[in-house]
Amino acid sequence: MYAITIPEPGGPEALVWAEVPDPVPGEGEVLVEVVAGAVNRADLLQRQGFYNPPPGASPYPGLECSGRITALGPGVSGWAVGDEVCALLSGGGYAERVAVPAGQLLPVPEGVDLVTAAALPEVTSTVWSNVFMISHLRPGETLLAHGGSSGIGTMAIQLAKAVGAKVAVTAGSKEKLDFCGELGADVLINYREQDFVGEIERATDGAGADVILDNMGAKYLDRNVQALAVNGRLAIIGMQGGAKGELDIGALLGKRAAVTATSLRARPTAEKASIISAVREHVWPLIAEGHVRPIVDRTVPMRDAAAAHRILEESSHIGKVLLQH
Amino acid sequence: MYAITIPEPGGPEALVWAEVPDPVPGEGEVLVEVVAGAVNRADLLQRQGFYNPPPGASPYPGLECSGRITALGPGVSGWAVGDEVCALLSGGGYAERVAVPAGQLLPVPEGVDLVTAAALPEVTSTVWSNVFMISHLRPGETLLAHGGSSGIGTMAIQLAKAVGAKVAVTAGSKEKLDFCGELGADVLINYREQDFVGEIERATDGAGADVILDNMGAKYLDRNVQALAVNGRLAIIGMQGGAKGELDIGALLGKRAAVTATSLRARPTAEKASIISAVREHVWPLIAEGHVRPIVDRTVPMRDAAAAHRILEESSHIGKVLLQH
Repeated sequence: MYAITIPEPGGPEALVWAEVPDPVPGEGEVLVEVVAGAVNRADLLQRQGFYNPPPGASPYPGLECSGRITALGPGVSGWAVGDEVCALLSGGGYAERVAVPAGQLLPVPEGVDLVTAAALPEVTSTVWSNVFMISHLRPGETLLAHGGSSGIGTMAIQLAKAVGAKVAVTAGSKEKLDFCGELGADVLINYREQDFVGEIERATDGAGADVILDNMGAKYLDRNVQALAVNGRLAIIGMQGGAKGELDIGALLGKRAAVTATSLRARPTAEKASIISAVREHVWPLIAEGHVRPIVDRTVPMRDAAAAHRILEESSHIGKVLLQH
Repeated sequence: MYAITIPEPGGPEALVWAEVPDPVPGEGEVLVEVVAGAVNRADLLQRQGFYNPPPGASPYPGLECSGRITALGPGVSGWAVGDEVCALLSGGGYAERVAVPAGQLLPVPEGVDLVTAAALPEVTSTVWSNVFMISHLRPGETLLAHGGSSGIGTMAIQLAKAVGAKVAVTAGSKEKLDFCGELGADVLINYREQDFVGEIERATDGAGADVILDNMGAKYLDRNVQALAVNGRLAIIGMQGGAKGELDIGALLGKRAAVTATSLRARPTAEKASIISAVREHVWPLIAEGHVRPIVDRTVPMRDAAAAHRILEESSHIGKVLLQH
């Protein structure tokens, strides 16, 4: 088969469409004929040589895909050859075929076409596991989602609104913030012009955000702690603003607050399966009922993955960038 | 009545036994005739002027006591005049009488005398709420408790062993560590001579501690994160080593770990009542069955509270220092 390979780490041009051996589904895995994949920020880091695949994972980039099952490995039940699925991957989505543990498969949700379904596994799993399973966002509470117009952000807005929370977002342009508002965000903060700590205080009568979903890491750590409410939870899922920052433990203690940091890719298969199972139970019905929808910026041919990476690096997109065969 | 007052912040001599107005139990409160109180590190900070009582709390120090109920305020049920109790206080325990919200009362546990019961409310509430309600220590997991010979530490060892966890402690002398070992601690680390990160790694085959109960704050932050296991939880309950420290978010994210910080005193009455209720349900039976016992270093006359504060400042004690009328 063909896949996007990374012979040498580097810029977008480091992505090379090349012939590689076909994957073979192992115990508990299925083989998926990929119809579409999606780009994640972790793919850009992997391309640059900063994010090596975990042991046992495919060496090719791509953390999610949609497609059709073409073979079942030993010990797989509940799925059949020909099923249309989308899947959370630990790598290898930028390819014609990929082997996937059955616990990471999801059916294509009602009302979503097979290509667009590739936009769903990472954002639904990341948002559901962090905002709901770890941080327990409750109806009536306030979520602050940084990067509100990203794939993660657009899903966080919709899921938080669907459970009855208030949602504040940060983004870098009026166009992006307007889109977040259309998706239901209540408080729109332009981080280039406004201080999000002050804006959150104003929007919550001084109470602060109950949950913050953060992709910036060190750069926002101190201000995120300032913006938290009493009993607040800061969930860090990215470090675009650095990995080491000063933590004001006194402020955290005064608020009885929590800081968590997670990534999805490194989780063991069993933990991924438990997240996927929760997503299928809680998020899939919201999609089928039309309360939540995948947001796709555009679709690029998979062999031009370099073009898709350039779009993410410019950060002009809203929602997900897909790769289609 | 008489109480220990703090006319001017300062050293132990700042504590003055003086006549003050009697407290009056408000709605939902009872009046307790104090038989004994206990010293907490927060009392030392309050004496120095660094830890003001929360709004509405008694201005006198003392976060726990034992004694007899002498009057019921309006709206109290389930308690009667004459009941022997111990209680979690938001202040005012260094006194002859104190008014307490009924939700912060506990019966004197079976097998414990009334004076010794004063050693229980703070340590059981702090350990149960942090190690179990927030950090969910599970059977078979490893707890690292810093300050293993303190009141908090000696209770943490016993409760963690009672639920089937493995326990590592740090302390500053062989005598203190020997006592921790007698209470059941499996791994004894002298922080003056050993690096706790390396010792925890060795004791857990490289896995790390699942839960860390920390009273040091900034000074231990980086090493605590290093010592955490995958899915580990760091629960900070004190800042004896400073309030601002560098957090390695990358390490935290690689471990999918959590940092929480709490204090008991500032919690609203309803949260305290919910902790006390959990302590009565889960900890009191362990005391009645003899699996867990209060550890008392010595008992000092309450009007000599200054002497008790000097003992805590020298840190030569093991367990709680009580104040008796």
